[in-house]
Amino acid sequence: MNFASDNVTGASPEIIAAIAAANHGPAMPYGADEITRRLEQRFAEVFEHEVAVFPVATGTAANTLALACLTPVYGAVYCHEEAHIATDECGAPEFFTGGAKLVTCPGEHGKLTPEILAPRIVGAGVVHNVQPAAISITQETEAGTVYRPAEIAALSALARQHALALHMDGARFANAVAGLGCAPADLTWRAGVDALSFGATKNGALAAEAVLFFDPKRAESFGYRRKRAGHLLSKQRFVAAQLEAYLTDDLWLRNARHANAMAARLGSGLAALPGARLLHPVEGNEVFVEFGDRAIERLAAAGFGFYRWGEAPIIRLVTAFDTASEAVESFLRVAGEALGGVTKR
Amino acid sequence: MNFASDNVTGASPEIIAAIAAANHGPAMPYGADEITRRLEQRFAEVFEHEVAVFPVATGTAANTLALACLTPVYGAVYCHEEAHIATDECGAPEFFTGGAKLVTCPGEHGKLTPEILAPRIVGAGVVHNVQPAAISITQETEAGTVYRPAEIAALSALARQHALALHMDGARFANAVAGLGCAPADLTWRAGVDALSFGATKNGALAAEAVLFFDPKRAESFGYRRKRAGHLLSKQRFVAAQLEAYLTDDLWLRNARHANAMAARLGSGLAALPGARLLHPVEGNEVFVEFGDRAIERLAAAGFGFYRWGEAPIIRLVTAFDTASEAVESFLRVAGEALGGVTKR
Amino acid sequence: MNFASDNVTGASPEIIAAIAAANHGPAMPYGADEITRRLEQRFAEVFEHEVAVFPVATGTAANTLALACLTPVYGAVYCHEEAHIATDECGAPEFFTGGAKLVTCPGEHGKLTPEILAPRIVGAGVVHNVQPAAISITQETEAGTVYRPAEIAALSALARQHALALHMDGARFANAVAGLGCAPADLTWRAGVDALSFGATKNGALAAEAVLFFDPKRAESFGYRRKRAGHLLSKQRFVAAQLEAYLTDDLWLRNARHANAMAARLGSGLAALPGARLLHPVEGNEVFVEFGDRAIERLAAAGFGFYRWGEAPIIRLVTAFDTASEAVESFLRVAGEALGGVTKR
Amino acid sequence: MNFASDNVTGASPEIIAAIAAANHGPAMPYGADEITRRLEQRFAEVFEHEVAVFPVATGTAANTLALACLTPVYGAVYCHEEAHIATDECGAPEFFTGGAKLVTCPGEHGKLTPEILAPRIVGAGVVHNVQPAAISITQETEAGTVYRPAEIAALSALARQHALALHMDGARFANAVAGLGCAPADLTWRAGVDALSFGATKNGALAAEAVLFFDPKRAESFGYRRKRAGHLLSKQRFVAAQLEAYLTDDLWLRNARHANAMAARLGSGLAALPGARLLHPVEGNEVFVEFGDRAIERLAAAGFGFYRWGEAPIIRLVTAFDTASEAVESFLRVAGEALGGVTKR
Repeated sequence: MNFASDNVTGASPEIIAAIAAANHGPAMPYGADEITRRLEQRFAEVFEHEVAVFPVATGTAANTLALACLTPVYGAVYCHEEAHIATDECGAPEFFTGGAKLVTCPGEHGKLTPEILAPRIVGAGVVHNVQPAAISITQETEAGTVYRPAEIAALSALARQHALALHMDGARFANAVAGLGCAPADLTWRAGVDALSFGATKNGALAAEAVLFFDPKRAESFGYRRKRAGHLLSKQRFVAAQLEAYLTDDLWLRNARHANAMAARLGSGLAALPGARLLHPVEGNEVFVEFGDRAIERLAAAGFGFYRWGEAPIIRLVTAFDTASEAVESFLRVAGEALGGVTKR
Repeated sequence: MNFASDNVTGASPEIIAAIAAANHGPAMPYGADEITRRLEQRFAEVFEHEVAVFPVATGTAANTLALACLTPVYGAVYCHEEAHIATDECGAPEFFTGGAKLVTCPGEHGKLTPEILAPRIVGAGVVHNVQPAAISITQETEAGTVYRPAEIAALSALARQHALALHMDGARFANAVAGLGCAPADLTWRAGVDALSFGATKNGALAAEAVLFFDPKRAESFGYRRKRAGHLLSKQRFVAAQLEAYLTDDLWLRNARHANAMAARLGSGLAALPGARLLHPVEGNEVFVEFGDRAIERLAAAGFGFYRWGEAPIIRLVTAFDTASEAVESFLRVAGEALGGVTKR
Repeated sequence: MNFASDNVTGASPEIIAAIAAANHGPAMPYGADEITRRLEQRFAEVFEHEVAVFPVATGTAANTLALACLTPVYGAVYCHEEAHIATDECGAPEFFTGGAKLVTCPGEHGKLTPEILAPRIVGAGVVHNVQPAAISITQETEAGTVYRPAEIAALSALARQHALALHMDGARFANAVAGLGCAPADLTWRAGVDALSFGATKNGALAAEAVLFFDPKRAESFGYRRKRAGHLLSKQRFVAAQLEAYLTDDLWLRNARHANAMAARLGSGLAALPGARLLHPVEGNEVFVEFGDRAIERLAAAGFGFYRWGEAPIIRLVTAFDTASEAVESFLRVAGEALGGVTKR
Repeated sequence: MNFASDNVTGASPEIIAAIAAANHGPAMPYGADEITRRLEQRFAEVFEHEVAVFPVATGTAANTLALACLTPVYGAVYCHEEAHIATDECGAPEFFTGGAKLVTCPGEHGKLTPEILAPRIVGAGVVHNVQPAAISITQETEAGTVYRPAEIAALSALARQHALALHMDGARFANAVAGLGCAPADLTWRAGVDALSFGATKNGALAAEAVLFFDPKRAESFGYRRKRAGHLLSKQRFVAAQLEAYLTDDLWLRNARHANAMAARLGSGLAALPGARLLHPVEGNEVFVEFGDRAIERLAAAGFGFYRWGEAPIIRLVTAFDTASEAVESFLRVAGEALGGVTKR
């Protein structure tokens, strides 16, 4: 009944089991353990490419440590104006990068395009301006939509043209992969992504993300930056164990597929209601819908959890790996009643 | 057989059980959950004082976020030259404080004293100098010794005289409490400590520390600093659950007492060996011993894990909540053989 | 003939003379000299209010050191999207504040209004958001317009309501005072300004600005921040001497009045030309005019210096204390010829 | 009569004249002027080597901007424990470098040696440790002594061995060159120095220093760092004019030779007095002398300016380009009287 966020969930049983299983006797600390060692190989298989892997416990750490490797302290990082790094991390990117500037851009359905970005990439070589350094996109976006490989490749081409790095905040990367049904590689290095914040926490892990660099050279300072930011856990094996379980038997994709299916059902059910309007295509596990205020109040009164999105009568619904089908149907029923019980034709 | 560090251990079964138990259905994220809410009250009972509690996942985060609340960006933080914050955190204090300077001081057996500190606290009000802001001490110290309440109070008196805050890095606070058999309050607010990094990870938790402020005013910026440092976990309940279990039924003290007992046995056993010399009193769970090089090699060859301490033939042995008595006896036996089998009289 | 900026000028003869006059024998360094001492009193007279005065050599230093006193490291500073601090200081505000975020806002003719700002001041008390800390306005604005006392007071009222500080970048403060003919106090503390970057360099000084705080409490960290930023000159008397001369016999206002008069003549002359369009009211020493591309080329070919403003055929003309009347008339003549020689009716 | 510091002086007449001469008509701002353009060539001649030159107004800016180019944010910079960067810049190195750590080392007469440094250069490649990045030495040292070319070369060899950069704080570089009578190249790139803070302010300039990089690659970020630190003056020509005059007709060396001669006379005169003891060889323009407390008081009462050096009855005397021979003789006379009027044999 709680559609507020995918982080109100607990962890998948497989993740808890993996933590318990990792708890046997001593292991070298700070990532010198066996599980961490296995992880790089595992990710290389999943992504079909050599990859430098750095597990951390939070998405903010993943995003901002990655960005710190991709921009000088006087750099500019281009991102969508609703990007998590811009709006929800209390200035973490500025802190970790040592003062780089986020240049926020508009964009339909949460997406950046080369047309939007190109005129904003200015000032290279001029000491008065922050220096163009990186583009950061979110997959799935903050609007619940998903970048196609070709869209990413177009941004990457622009990035190459200006010698910018391309970072992907993949807090919901699994939902994007599941939604598109393509290979992880198609959404990353094959499309020109340099660094990926590979999220697991929102999709079944307890507290585990990984930063992936497809060119190890870009990662040279990561280990030091992670340590000085307090993000190298001494018992690092327990983060690695989560990620390993997450990748085992496609848990990550199974979880994401379920969440996406629940969102799809929510989305189609809501779209059919008169007085409800979807703001964005439902391509992952998020649904943004405009309702009347009265309907929103009634849904809240019925015990459903969700966030209002800004001042307008818009709510965001997020599904997760453990969202019950009954909760979705129940939500649609109450919403239908609140909106007058008549189905759109 | 691994005496390298107390962070080569896994977690206490009670901690793993608490994590599993916390994994039931949705909970509000970012510390708005029930377990986190209960925690402040629990710590207040243990410390017999109102306390602002901020759980984090690593000791470096705990120490440096605490320090960032206690010093301006142009401040000086006085600490022992072997303090973890000075030697083992890759510049994290400088990073989190925005550039404050650690002023490192010598001191017997890992301890600072007012006599050592007083002449170094200079420059207040002079713009050319970093401004005296805080003292940071480690309990138990990096030499395995323990500050007595009166020693802390003497440092606190000096701190008050210069308007400095007093921070305690309590990565092994439990071992100190267990070793002295005094109340947690005696080693903290009653002796004038303003902020405590309360460690749990080294003593049975998986990844859990808490920063405690005995005057909530000093903590006003902590929440923002933790978030922008990426140290506010979305599923924060799982950190809180560890801390709650850690404080339940005195798990923290039971674990520490065992570790201390193992260290005491190691210490007394080694002290009795000819050719072995303890460098510091054994007051917690660490033993520093000078051996011959040959004996060190023989112990390593026998499969024991430990760190050499600098260039001299000195090794550090750390015991933990799960150190087996057999491992200790085995170590003493091999050490005795290596040193010639003759017991000191 | 150079209208590119008021910083292409040299210094007023009075300023050079004051520097030479200050060069007699020893003086205590770092601002402990007699001239610096006199300065605070002098500013208090000019501003009719107690004021803490900190001379520095550049406007970027003045602005960003001031802001660093007004925002926590996780703060938000609201400013116009064309503000110098946002566009022309290579990330200096982020650097000096330790990572605070500039929240840029649109606004007609370079001005912020309460209507524009109010809906953007969000997130207070929410750890995910940077914390509202300060508003920074530019006087005269980057569009060459001037805030009236009532406009400033309205922004100040909003600031008070949200406990924000109000900073004024007064790089061209003299031009605003001269343009409005009001008292310096009317544009600052009487209207609620907390800190002023009082510019002199663009208006006749060699390299001298002063940060003024009308409440000395806000300035407590300034001295340390200035020193650690390398902005406390050892022979500080030479900066103070410039500022003293600048305030003597109204040099600052005489210089500004001349510059403004030249801009007014340029503005009215251009407004009368067909094919020329002023973008903003001319209220200080800057004129923004839209021309045909051919006319711009012809003016450039004739040897006039100016900057194009963005992609459109717009140029900015800046007058200064030493702009020759002949240069203005010459510019208008060539512009008139370039545009067809017909005067608007 | 003021021996407190060489920054209590004003400027050489030639410097003031150069400033006045530079004040004719417009010039492109921010260092795009003619004088700045000429400067790089002039320095290349003086140093017999291609060199990237960055004028700034203060020594702290010069030192810390240079260091910021030579160390990552998690780096270690090795310096003498009395180095100006370590003791007198209010944490500026930490600020400009984004948190790098100064590792302070002891050393006779203000000098570092490879023997002292080598055992402290540890931790390379270990994420727990700040990463060895640079060595910074001061020429002349804070003890008034001077590094010989061979001494510098020995440090440089150590630096190369560990891939460290070698920085020289040359606040009194002219005094060292004058004292040794060698070429500027001998003390810098020929001996392996990578970056030099070339001081002028203490030796006759008003406010002018230059950072010199002998390998332009190391300077790539300097321009951006200088701007974002507010150290790029808009009327940069006035800083360049000072440096040009400083290098013209050997003004810099003439000034330094005079200061050195005055110090030599002071030193030899004091050495001949019973009850006076020189602490360091007098090799530049500074004399450190141990007196009785009564003699110190008597000299102060007689109106001489100087600083006491720590708690012991030691004073520092600094001579400058404008120190009058009479002031020196007068000081020696009063000192002689104060100490009993008997000359040592």
